[in-house]
Amino acid sequence: MNRQGILIVVSGFSGSGKGTIMKELIRRYDDNYALSVSATTRQPREGEADGREYFFKTREEFEKMIAKEELIEYARYVNNYYGTPKAYVEEQLAAGRDVILEIELQGALKIKEKFPQALLLFVTPPSVNELKRRLISRGTESEEVIEQRMKRASEEAEGMEAYDYYVVNDVLDTCVEDVHRIICAEHGRSMRNREFAEMIKKELKGE
Amino acid sequence: MNRQGILIVVSGFSGSGKGTIMKELIRRYDDNYALSVSATTRQPREGEADGREYFFKTREEFEKMIAKEELIEYARYVNNYYGTPKAYVEEQLAAGRDVILEIELQGALKIKEKFPQALLLFVTPPSVNELKRRLISRGTESEEVIEQRMKRASEEAEGMEAYDYYVVNDVLDTCVEDVHRIICAEHGRSMRNREFAEMIKKELKGE
Repeated sequence: MNRQGILIVVSGFSGSGKGTIMKELIRRYDDNYALSVSATTRQPREGEADGREYFFKTREEFEKMIAKEELIEYARYVNNYYGTPKAYVEEQLAAGRDVILEIELQGALKIKEKFPQALLLFVTPPSVNELKRRLISRGTESEEVIEQRMKRASEEAEGMEAYDYYVVNDVLDTCVEDVHRIICAEHGRSMRNREFAEMIKKELKGE
Repeated sequence: MNRQGILIVVSGFSGSGKGTIMKELIRRYDDNYALSVSATTRQPREGEADGREYFFKTREEFEKMIAKEELIEYARYVNNYYGTPKAYVEEQLAAGRDVILEIELQGALKIKEKFPQALLLFVTPPSVNELKRRLISRGTESEEVIEQRMKRASEEAEGMEAYDYYVVNDVLDTCVEDVHRIICAEHGRSMRNREFAEMIKKELKGE
């Protein structure tokens, strides 16, 4: 069957552990997956390399990318742009690698619009109590910040229906394998294998 | 998340090996799966037990089942009825077991209509040449029968789009694991976990 890559969008509440899951997924299955690298106009921090953490762009360059529709989606936070360059994603997909984008709800919806075959995963802790417990146990956030994050989670949860799968992050190891299993299974989905079905039909007709 | 069972419909060309795959799947993962048992008005053959190979019914009993809508789908071949009793399927699903129905295209479409959440799998050999090779290598079918089966396969292939996944049966062991993986992954699908999403939303709102 088809080995075209799948564009995978991963979202989840802050504290869901999605970053850790994705890192571990890529460490285990390096050949299968590519993590999308965002473009940004913010200054590189120490240790950050162009093309690794981000593609660093001037504002002029970034706005040119917008004008030329070279970004799948972009947003502006404070005074900087952040966006997903189309070229890198498309190259990786064509090479048969599944490309992972870590992105929040609004971005996920934009991606689904442009790439209807994108696979949307939502990472969630097993319960809200567990989410709160994790945020508190970090020990770095004030009570106020935790309350803000819970409020933000409540907003993000309103978009949960838009996702294709929920991934419960209870035990990290299980969760990483769950994500890998979902993606592998999705490669066999009929809508991703129209060409294969057409080939079988033609051959059966003796064409 | 939800552990409600999934109703799984398996179809595929004669010679695709779907029967062998299902038997092996149930042998390996006995706790997860239940094979649906059909009802029929045909006479039991030697060694067949009521409730194991089939639920054996008189014509009157079967027609009463039709009238009382106790069958998910049924069809008449030659002078006998064959159908899928609803009660057994619903009991197993409620007990959290995934129920497997081996059934052809027309039946599969009826099931999807009544159970929109049913999961439709289509088993196919890697190519038409391979299908032909397998039918010939059985050594039991005449050339004419093989031609008939190929013609029938061509008709069945027209319905391939209606299925959710294609499962390529190349190596049996891999194929059995592919099917198991698809079904496990499907348990995390958002449409099967609406209640879980509602629970998370409510808890986040502090309700």
